[in-house]
Amino acid sequence: MTTTLHVCTTCRAGEVLEEDAPRPGAQLHAALTQADAPKGVKIVAVECLSACSQGAAVALSEPGKWTYVYGRLTAADTPDILAGAAAYAASGDGLVPWRERPVIFRKQSLARIPPMETNS
Amino acid sequence: MTTTLHVCTTCRAGEVLEEDAPRPGAQLHAALTQADAPKGVKIVAVECLSACSQGAAVALSEPGKWTYVYGRLTAADTPDILAGAAAYAASGDGLVPWRERPVIFRKQSLARIPPMETNS
Repeated sequence: MTTTLHVCTTCRAGEVLEEDAPRPGAQLHAALTQADAPKGVKIVAVECLSACSQGAAVALSEPGKWTYVYGRLTAADTPDILAGAAAYAASGDGLVPWRERPVIFRKQSLARIPPMETNS
Repeated sequence: MTTTLHVCTTCRAGEVLEEDAPRPGAQLHAALTQADAPKGVKIVAVECLSACSQGAAVALSEPGKWTYVYGRLTAADTPDILAGAAAYAASGDGLVPWRERPVIFRKQSLARIPPMETNS
């Protein structure tokens, strides 16, 4: 299985921007894809994670694991986001021990969702 | 497939509560389970959806569909939450047309996450 790191590319992060101005979400996506993705992590752009007031936002998901959504991120958080994604990918259930989470993952969680029940 | 409506039962909804005081999340869960669940919707209690500052919170998920997380909910929102869950369950991909969403689902989305890629 592969971990997916969804990155909202349309996010304005609460800023009032000119129509053609670079969006904070797109800038975060560009920074993440320019870095080396951790093993087992696929970075996928998505238009709107519906966390507009708390953006820029990303989501970590993988079948069978808890899903996490993080917000108030910028391109400067790229190394921490990728480190957190690597720890998530290496975990069995998506629950990374607290001390092993980057600080932004401890403090900027917007939501988490239990694994899907696929046998129902 | 069954839609799961996860309800955070530990949520204090930002309130300072006595240790044994009823939690807003537990009150919301009780109200939801006392009502009739819509067809195809299973209500599941969960300890912490990590949306603590925006609680009480619920999440709607189903394999193959977008996942949605909603916040700032109370037991008074029970009819609207169940109506929104029914519309979600009836949808093919979790994307319910805007006008058919309860107002709380239009205005109190905390996040949405694309369907999992299960074939990767």
